[in-house]
Order: sequence, then C-alpha cells, then structure tokens
Amino acid sequence: MNLNLAVISGDGIGPEVVREARKVLDRIAEKYGHEIHYTDLLMGGASIDIHGVPLTDETIEIAKSSDAVLMGSIGGNAATSPWYKLPADRRPEAGLLKLRKSLGLFANLRPAILYKELQDACPLRKDISDKGFDMMIMRELTGGLYFGARETKEVDGVMTAIDTLTYNENEIRRIAKRAFDIAGKRRKKVCSVDKANVLDSSRLWRKVVEEVAKEYPEIELTHMLVDNCAMQLVKDPAQFDVILTENMFGDILSDEASMVTGSIGMLASASLNDSKFGLYEPSGGSAPDIAGQNIANPIATILSAAMMLRYSFDLDKEANAIEQAVSQVLAEGYRTGDIMSEGCRRVGTTEMGDLIAERV
Amino acid sequence: MNLNLAVISGDGIGPEVVREARKVLDRIAEKYGHEIHYTDLLMGGASIDIHGVPLTDETIEIAKSSDAVLMGSIGGNAATSPWYKLPADRRPEAGLLKLRKSLGLFANLRPAILYKELQDACPLRKDISDKGFDMMIMRELTGGLYFGARETKEVDGVMTAIDTLTYNENEIRRIAKRAFDIAGKRRKKVCSVDKANVLDSSRLWRKVVEEVAKEYPEIELTHMLVDNCAMQLVKDPAQFDVILTENMFGDILSDEASMVTGSIGMLASASLNDSKFGLYEPSGGSAPDIAGQNIANPIATILSAAMMLRYSFDLDKEANAIEQAVSQVLAEGYRTGDIMSEGCRRVGTTEMGDLIAERV
Ligand SMILES: CC(C)[C@H](C(=O)O)[C@@H](O)C(=O)O
Ligand SMILES: CC(C)[C@H](C(=O)O)[C@@H](O)C(=O)O
Repeated sequence: MNLNLAVISGDGIGPEVVREARKVLDRIAEKYGHEIHYTDLLMGGASIDIHGVPLTDETIEIAKSSDAVLMGSIGGNAATSPWYKLPADRRPEAGLLKLRKSLGLFANLRPAILYKELQDACPLRKDISDKGFDMMIMRELTGGLYFGARETKEVDGVMTAIDTLTYNENEIRRIAKRAFDIAGKRRKKVCSVDKANVLDSSRLWRKVVEEVAKEYPEIELTHMLVDNCAMQLVKDPAQFDVILTENMFGDILSDEASMVTGSIGMLASASLNDSKFGLYEPSGGSAPDIAGQNIANPIATILSAAMMLRYSFDLDKEANAIEQAVSQVLAEGYRTGDIMSEGCRRVGTTEMGDLIAERV
Repeated sequence: MNLNLAVISGDGIGPEVVREARKVLDRIAEKYGHEIHYTDLLMGGASIDIHGVPLTDETIEIAKSSDAVLMGSIGGNAATSPWYKLPADRRPEAGLLKLRKSLGLFANLRPAILYKELQDACPLRKDISDKGFDMMIMRELTGGLYFGARETKEVDGVMTAIDTLTYNENEIRRIAKRAFDIAGKRRKKVCSVDKANVLDSSRLWRKVVEEVAKEYPEIELTHMLVDNCAMQLVKDPAQFDVILTENMFGDILSDEASMVTGSIGMLASASLNDSKFGLYEPSGGSAPDIAGQNIANPIATILSAAMMLRYSFDLDKEANAIEQAVSQVLAEGYRTGDIMSEGCRRVGTTEMGDLIAERV
C-alpha cells in the first residue's frame, strides 16, 4: 500500500517524538511491504518563526491532499515565549484550531487506558486502580463554544465579551453515530455527557443522541451531567466504556481522564473527518521545558501512528503489531523517565523508539 | 443578636440534614445569647408539588427580606421523578438558578478540604493525600453560559440550539475582588482558571483579574487553563489555595475537587451577594435514594451553617465553635456511613447532629 503522510512535527518535544514514530512506521513499511511518503509541514510556533502565522493556506492544502496527518505537538511556554505576545488568533494554538476546522476533523478519539504495567503511576488509590480501566472519550471537535461567534465590545460603557455555543442536529448526529459505531467494537456502552439541566445545546444534544441510539439497540446508552462526570472519573473510572460529549466538556474531561491514568506519555489520539482522513497526535502537550533532552516519552506518538494505520488505512494487523511491540517493551521493563518505577530500566526517547521498532 | 433566617429544606435528604443544622444553631443561640427566627420556604420539587412551580415570587420576596438563607438540597431522581417530565424551566433546579439570580448571589465559595481524620476516604494515592489540601473554589454564580440568552430554532431546516456566554468587566471585577479578599485571610495565593487560548470571555476575564491583582500586591496570582486545572486537581491538589473561575468551569472543577476529598458529605458552600446576605447549602446533592433513612451525613449542612454565622453575621467565635465541635466528633471516632472506616463508631443523621450540638 502507498501511504501519503503529512507530518507536522511542531514545537517543543514534537520533533523528537515524531522522529521515533517515523522510525516505527518505517519498520512496519519494510516488514509488511508498504511504501510511506512523508511530507513535512510547519504549524504552530515553528510556522510563526518562518511565516509569521501559525498555519498557512498552502500547509492546509498539502495536508488536505495527504492521506493522513501525523503530528507531534504545538505551542510553547505561554509565560516566556514571544509567540504569546501575538494577538490570540496568531498564536500557535490558533493554527491547530484552524486546521481541525479546515480538515473537518469533527471526531476526536482519546483513549484513556490504565496500563497494567504502569499501575503504580496511577494517582488513584490502589483499590480503585486495581480494577483497571480502558475508556474512549469521543469529543466533538469542530463545533460548540470553541468555534462559535465571539466578540468583545463596549455595552453601555462597560467592556463585555461574548462567546457563543451552537450545535445543530447534524453535527450532533454524526459524532453520536461515530461513538455508537466504536462502542459496538468495544464493551457496547455509551455514556453521553451534557448539562441538559441548564443548556439548550445540551437538551438538543441529548434528544439527538437518543434518536441515534434507536439505530443501535445492542448498545447501552446512559446520560450523565458534566459536573457529575468530572466526579465519577476520579471515583470509579472503570464504569466507563465510551464517553460521548461536546467540544468543551470533552476538552476538560479528556484531560482529566488522561491524568487519572497517571501516564499521559502513553496516550494517543485521533481526530477524524467523515471519511477515512485523520490527524493523529499524542494527548500530551509540547513540554518545552524538557525539549531536546532525549527524555520525552515517544510512546503516545507511536501509538497515535498505530491509530492512524487502523482508522485511516484499515491496516489492523500493522496497528496491532505496533501496540504489541509497545506492550512487550513495557513488559520487559523499559521505561522513559515519566513512567519510571523501581526495578525498571530507564531509557531515553531514541532508545525507546529503537526498542519498539525492533519488536515490531 | 437577632438572626432572621429563611430555611429551604428542599428535597431528598434536605429536610433531614437541615433539621440537624437547626439543632446545632439552636444550641449556639442558647449558649451565646442569640435569637434565631426561622421561616420555612418551599423550593424545588417540594414547591412543584404544592404550587406547580419550583419557586414562587412570594418565596423570593420572603427570602430577600431575611438575613440569610439556609438550604438543604434541591431535586430528585431525573430518571424516575415526575418533576423531570416538566419543561426545563419548571424543573426543581430551575428554581435554584432563579433564586441565585434574584438574590444577586454572584460569589459561590466552595471549600474542598481533606480532613486528616478522613484521609482514608480520599480516592488519591497515599503519597498524594499525605500532603493534605485545603482549597477554596470561588465560582462566579450568576453570569456566563448558565444565565446567557438561549434559543432552539430551525436554521435552514436544521434544528439548532444556541447558548451564550457573556461576561462584562464589572461582573468579573467583583468576583475577583472577593477571591483576593478571601485569599488575604488564607495562604495568599489566587489561581485564576480560564480558557484564554480560545475564548474572548476568558481573555477579558484574565485582563480584569490582572487589573484587580494590582490592588493586592501581597497576593500571588497565577493563571491556569481549565483543561490543565482538571488535571492538576488530581495530580497535586495541595498546590491550590484559592481557585477563581467563571460559572461553568467552577461547576465542573468544584465538583471534581469535592470528589477528590473523598468526603462530599463534609463539604459546605456559601453563595454571597455584594453585601452580607448569603445562601448556605451543602455541596452534595439531594441523594433521593437514601432519603428518610437517617443515614445521610448532616456535617456539610452544619458546616454551611457555620459559614453563615461567619459571612452573614460576623459571628466568628460561634462559627469556630461549630467547626471545632465537628473536628472533635471526628476525632472521637464518630462517623456516618458515607465516611465510615475501620475502628470508628457508625452513627445516624440525628445522632451525628446530637453529638455535634452537645460539643458546641
Ligand atoms: C490547544 C487547545 C486549543 C486545544 C483545545 O482545547 O482544543 C487543546 O487543549 C486540546 O485539547 O487539543
Ligand atoms: C443544579 C445545577 C443547576 C447547579 C449548577 O450547575 O449550578 C448544581 O450543579 C450546582 O453546582 O449547584
């Protein structure tokens, strides 16, 4: 198969971790007889430094014409980096938001998995973490408050800022269908999270999700209010299979869930459009403080590459091979610093990439 | 002193826990020579059952003319209660939102404290809970998305729902001042939480909070993005003193923080206007499943009454007396079921109230 990939290494630890993911992908290509073409693109701070803007139209066009995008991470230290002296719509993160919208990436899949080997890193009490958990958070990614009309103006002499949260039934239906489809391949439970006791958008959300549920009689649907979900993720994460929610709630809850695993450096993510196209990136941030030191954990990015093979290319065997190689390396006791524990062998970013590539 | 209190016992366990708080207040009145007048008011489901609406104008007027409101809890089981067949603006929770707005209760104070005696209940790993924590979440309570214009309508034949998030500088300034004032009596740190990398309202929030901070040179101000804060509450809650945030973020984060303590049944809350008036209620919900069984924990409501004495009546000595009585009862090993642990003595709702009243 020919895989035509756009690669956005980005800022901070992005280039280092993407390099390891490419190493693993190259090994897959060799072993399974695929051909991968990489096109490097600039986004975020790296693009600001060269083009003055975080995302150029040309970059969007090249990304669009690729089969999938592999990304590292975007952004820097907001307190010290000159990028954050720019107006908001020209900062690194604005590039990411624009790319999501331009590519129609409405479905953000963020697995939050407690790896058995890494249970010690889980910040929860042992009797809770002993139960393990493996959930998939489906976050709507191109609607809601983060993409609504916004305005700051004087009203009766008082500065006033307005953001708008809009969802229509089509936007809700397509993400709900995705969530039910994915639940069908998992433990067959969808928990839809909203604030239907207050928001109109949440009431429409709940109504449409219930309509979609009728087409999936084998899937169990429950509803949960967002404030309660923020509690349940701490109290009993094992209760969740697929969590389906809108953009802002998903932003907050998926980060909470990733921290509950205790090993963000392990967590992949995929952002999909309505066909096979997707952008794949680690869940964690750009971690500028540890960039360039060969200590960042590349596993989240490597697992994101596995998600890419699965979701954009239907290469399940190859995706499984990567995931198994990761499990094997963990089982053999290799760890980067962020997931280090007693009796394990500490390795750097490139060594971790080598170890996984060798085991593919 | 004459204390003229409106009492909203509400639904579920509300009446039981309010009864114990009154018991403790009566003991305080006796001991310190105050006179307390209670006026019982209906709100939420209890009001729907009698008046058909969750809050009448008459109730608002009586509440307004009181010195402070003591509340139990509002609402029932959304899946089974007939209250939730009503249109959204006539359900129990709508009464609470309307009361907050009518009384101008813009400042919601929610302490999240890990009680030393209850450390075992904390869902976090022991090395994290060992550090202890004691934070105050200041949530703006009458602005933002929960009070913005909302509408559901067809747009080009597609059902579309819109909620609006509005803040003006005055709304932000008054809650920020409150947060800095309270931080001044605590550990002198304010962490303001927003999503300034995306939202206009958050950028105005940050700007105004920074202006207010200039009037408080002795207070340390930091900013944190809401998704990061949802992570930090799990990873290292000890880092926080006062968290200052807008309505919806505060709803989510304060519930998460309360669960991180592991003992919601212990957590009080106060909702204040711009003078001394306030509404005081436990942080937890109405728990209809355990109502009427004399097993609910009344301590959160009793501690809410202590907050009332402190914030609405400046009766610090009396407030301290209640808080010390609670500590003493815990130290003596008495526990309701929700906070029970090995070697402790399990007591019911009324017994817990008696024990605390006796020790005042
Ligand atoms: C960088 C920011 C705009 C982004 C978001 O909130 O969507 C990030 O937090 C994420 O979750 O991918
Ligand atoms: C009942 C509901 C409207 C309310 C809110 O979200 O404000 C509740 O969750 C709270 O936090 O007091």
